[in-house]
Amino acid sequence: MLNKCNDKSDQKVQELGKKMAETRVSDQSTMLKPPKGTRDRNPVQMNILENVFGVIRACFKRHDAVSIETPVFERREVLTGKYGEESKLIYNLEDQGGELLSLRYDLTVPFARYVAMNKIRNIKRFQIGKVYRRDQPAMNRGRFREFYQCDFDIAGDYGLMMADAECLRIVYEVLKHLNLGEFVIKVNHRRFLDGLFTVCGVPPEKFTTTCSSIDKLDKTPWETVKHELLDEKGLSPETVDLIGHYTQIAGGVEVLNKLEADPRLSESKTIQETLKEMRTLWEYCEAMGIISNLRVDLSLARGLDYYTGVIYEAVLTGFTYDGKQQLATELAPPPTDQQALKSPNKKKGKGGKGRQTQAEDGEDEDTAMEGAVGSVAGGGRYDNLVNLFSPNSPKVPCVGVSFGIERLLAIFEVSARRRAAAGDTSASASVRATETEVMVIVAHKGLITPRLQIARELWDAKIKTAFSHKNQPKLLDQLQYCESTGIPLAVLIGDAELQRGVVKLRRIDTRAEREVSRADLATEIRKELALIRGEGGHH
Amino acid sequence: MLNKCNDKSDQKVQELGKKMAETRVSDQSTMLKPPKGTRDRNPVQMNILENVFGVIRACFKRHDAVSIETPVFERREVLTGKYGEESKLIYNLEDQGGELLSLRYDLTVPFARYVAMNKIRNIKRFQIGKVYRRDQPAMNRGRFREFYQCDFDIAGDYGLMMADAECLRIVYEVLKHLNLGEFVIKVNHRRFLDGLFTVCGVPPEKFTTTCSSIDKLDKTPWETVKHELLDEKGLSPETVDLIGHYTQIAGGVEVLNKLEADPRLSESKTIQETLKEMRTLWEYCEAMGIISNLRVDLSLARGLDYYTGVIYEAVLTGFTYDGKQQLATELAPPPTDQQALKSPNKKKGKGGKGRQTQAEDGEDEDTAMEGAVGSVAGGGRYDNLVNLFSPNSPKVPCVGVSFGIERLLAIFEVSARRRAAAGDTSASASVRATETEVMVIVAHKGLITPRLQIARELWDAKIKTAFSHKNQPKLLDQLQYCESTGIPLAVLIGDAELQRGVVKLRRIDTRAEREVSRADLATEIRKELALIRGEGGHH
Repeated sequence: MLNKCNDKSDQKVQELGKKMAETRVSDQSTMLKPPKGTRDRNPVQMNILENVFGVIRACFKRHDAVSIETPVFERREVLTGKYGEESKLIYNLEDQGGELLSLRYDLTVPFARYVAMNKIRNIKRFQIGKVYRRDQPAMNRGRFREFYQCDFDIAGDYGLMMADAECLRIVYEVLKHLNLGEFVIKVNHRRFLDGLFTVCGVPPEKFTTTCSSIDKLDKTPWETVKHELLDEKGLSPETVDLIGHYTQIAGGVEVLNKLEADPRLSESKTIQETLKEMRTLWEYCEAMGIISNLRVDLSLARGLDYYTGVIYEAVLTGFTYDGKQQLATELAPPPTDQQALKSPNKKKGKGGKGRQTQAEDGEDEDTAMEGAVGSVAGGGRYDNLVNLFSPNSPKVPCVGVSFGIERLLAIFEVSARRRAAAGDTSASASVRATETEVMVIVAHKGLITPRLQIARELWDAKIKTAFSHKNQPKLLDQLQYCESTGIPLAVLIGDAELQRGVVKLRRIDTRAEREVSRADLATEIRKELALIRGEGGHH
Repeated sequence: MLNKCNDKSDQKVQELGKKMAETRVSDQSTMLKPPKGTRDRNPVQMNILENVFGVIRACFKRHDAVSIETPVFERREVLTGKYGEESKLIYNLEDQGGELLSLRYDLTVPFARYVAMNKIRNIKRFQIGKVYRRDQPAMNRGRFREFYQCDFDIAGDYGLMMADAECLRIVYEVLKHLNLGEFVIKVNHRRFLDGLFTVCGVPPEKFTTTCSSIDKLDKTPWETVKHELLDEKGLSPETVDLIGHYTQIAGGVEVLNKLEADPRLSESKTIQETLKEMRTLWEYCEAMGIISNLRVDLSLARGLDYYTGVIYEAVLTGFTYDGKQQLATELAPPPTDQQALKSPNKKKGKGGKGRQTQAEDGEDEDTAMEGAVGSVAGGGRYDNLVNLFSPNSPKVPCVGVSFGIERLLAIFEVSARRRAAAGDTSASASVRATETEVMVIVAHKGLITPRLQIARELWDAKIKTAFSHKNQPKLLDQLQYCESTGIPLAVLIGDAELQRGVVKLRRIDTRAEREVSRADLATEIRKELALIRGEGGHH
């Protein structure tokens, strides 16, 4: 026994020692980590980000939108009372004297503050910026504490559905131009849902909570939601069956016809009105050429309370891989955080337990990855938010859309990598970290000054040029730098050639070299680059 | 006496009431203000920002630089002990459980953390991002609590002065391409200054404090600095006179010759070595074609402690106006903060009092406006910072430059406005808020669907197109929208024309209209736009 006990103690001591050693190592390495739930973006990721932002910005600008910027923190009182339960996820700054400040939670409330403060009656603006949520991070599902939002909103007292239709066109254009395959934009109307709940027999005080349950239908089977509505929300079986019947309805304009003809709905003035509004929306969307991607979906509810009219959400349907799990793995950044490794298990136990917070249930389209390509954009009409800040001013109704940038970036990254592997040069370009076109390479010792002179000539000619900063770089190292970073051309210089006023121009892929007069160098490089681009990478 | 006393009391009560009324008004309006020391950026300012960032990014990319991004906050321990006295200006996040976090103070320390964490041996990277300093704001002098930094750094163990020279070339290219007139890049060497102090008889423990006094010479006359050195720093008159003699030396390569020939400096090994290094730098800069903008300036000291080699600072010299005061006024954003109104007075009393903090003395090139165009870029070599994070790893020497973006933006804004007023269309474009090329205008009631159809055709043709969201907008309002936002063309549609398959294409400036077949609309618009651009705005 004693021996055994000693054995165990020894074992324990050893384990403890091991743990302590591990702790020490991990302490040292966490010293250098970015904060929990955040991440650095490396050069390749930055290049993808710039490409995606470029496409999105171009769409916004094509639509006459202006851009604004607000500070990353706001006076705390500006954010207070705008996010309901989610308020506990707001990051506060330490009280170091002066104003109490908090990091912005989204871009919508600061936008409303901006509009109210500047007494703006109408504006079409976009804003791309980071927002902050002190949420339980799940980085391998794309949920961060610091993440980008990309918002497009139209504020102003305009004709029915005119601005709403343009927002849908924006979603359409952005997703088309990002080239991520087929997609569907689900559309519903917040007041239609209210009308439907009345018809189904939901008591008015249970509208919001019923709405939250419905909102889960894109990820949860009806049976689960049904039991939630019966057991937790306490709705009657008849009511729940009716809700089940209507929330299954989805489709094109024929759905509107069917609903208009439905005798049960004919008594509800709200429903008839919103159906008329939806018809107008459909008509405008048809004029804008986006009708084939729209779908009426009565199960779409969206989490946020402030919506007052049309709501929508875009889902990629053409981006399929070897099953959902595979995609989730491919999209996941390498887990750099203990929490990230734990959270998939955490997720499972939650089925019937109701929500802790909105974001924890992955309701937020900007952060959740949810093991599959979920919604990549969402928004709707919110007519009352601006006037929370300026209650005595004329009403400034708003409608807008927010793109799930972090998810789009992850998908774009996978997609670009796939296409690059398949030989698509435009995709290869987006998985490079630089756009450098040529490297000035020295064939032997010295040659520092000529190296810099030629680099200078090329920079002056607006050619993106690299050179080695080593005094005596090896030829092989320089060529390998071109290959590993994707630089397509090299200018080789040597004393003998320089004396004859020539250099060698080399294609990195084919290794073909030819002599070029130094005076013609920029021109010849441009020719060669055009040639390489024209080949489309098939070599 | 009693009466008098009552009079006074009455007066006081009245004043108090007045003050309270003012307070109430300002309370209501501050509710909607951005936090003290921060500001929103409006659409025109955003357009300028994008232009300036575009130019700078293009330069960085032409030089084979990659881009990275780090979170806006760091673990507090990452920032601790890196900023000396300035640490008190760091914004802390509230302790809401979990890690202690602080907003980043600059981009350099997070960059060093990134390099150490990823065990990077060499990288040429740029980063543009906002940094945070809980400083006394002086917004009319361009000093903010939230402001952009734009950094370009080269890390790696490279040949002497190779990377340093490229950083200077970067400063040159950025300022050339921003087109803000003549500029000078002052260059000095931190170790040269140390050698000089030794020769002049400054005791080693007073190097840093002497350096801080020297650093003021760009804004303060020698006589003031002289007295500071004598009275506060306690240097001997002979030492101070020698410092005065040498720090007046500035000029081209001839300065290096003169210093090499100076018998007093010949004994200092440090000085002779650094002079040799400077010669190498000059040689490389000559190869890179930037020598005419360089100036050796022995009075350049730069505030930060971490510099170990070459240091530099760029100053605009060609951007002159009706005197310094005028420029300061023109550059100043409208004061939106009580503090901003007070601070110019605050500045005055400080002459001989020594520094409270670096930033308060306007030493920071990124934030201070100082009533004139001061330095717009600055940087130098810092060989030890990365290894503070990874003391046992191989050394990663660095050299870099930081652009004073907020100042450049303000100057660019004034310059663009001036040029636009003088009829320069490229400048007019940058003071517009949008890039919209055409507006679809309805000539009479209705016409919603055709309006949207034509907008859609133009968007599909990649033409930036606006339309009114009102059901029945007035013709005049639509035309005025074009004029006020700078949209150059309008497509006028009316029922009669649509039936004939035509629309009217109208130039907003000349009011010239012509009928265009709807099928040719996009082509005709492109022709017209090319024409307008070709005219260069002279109409």
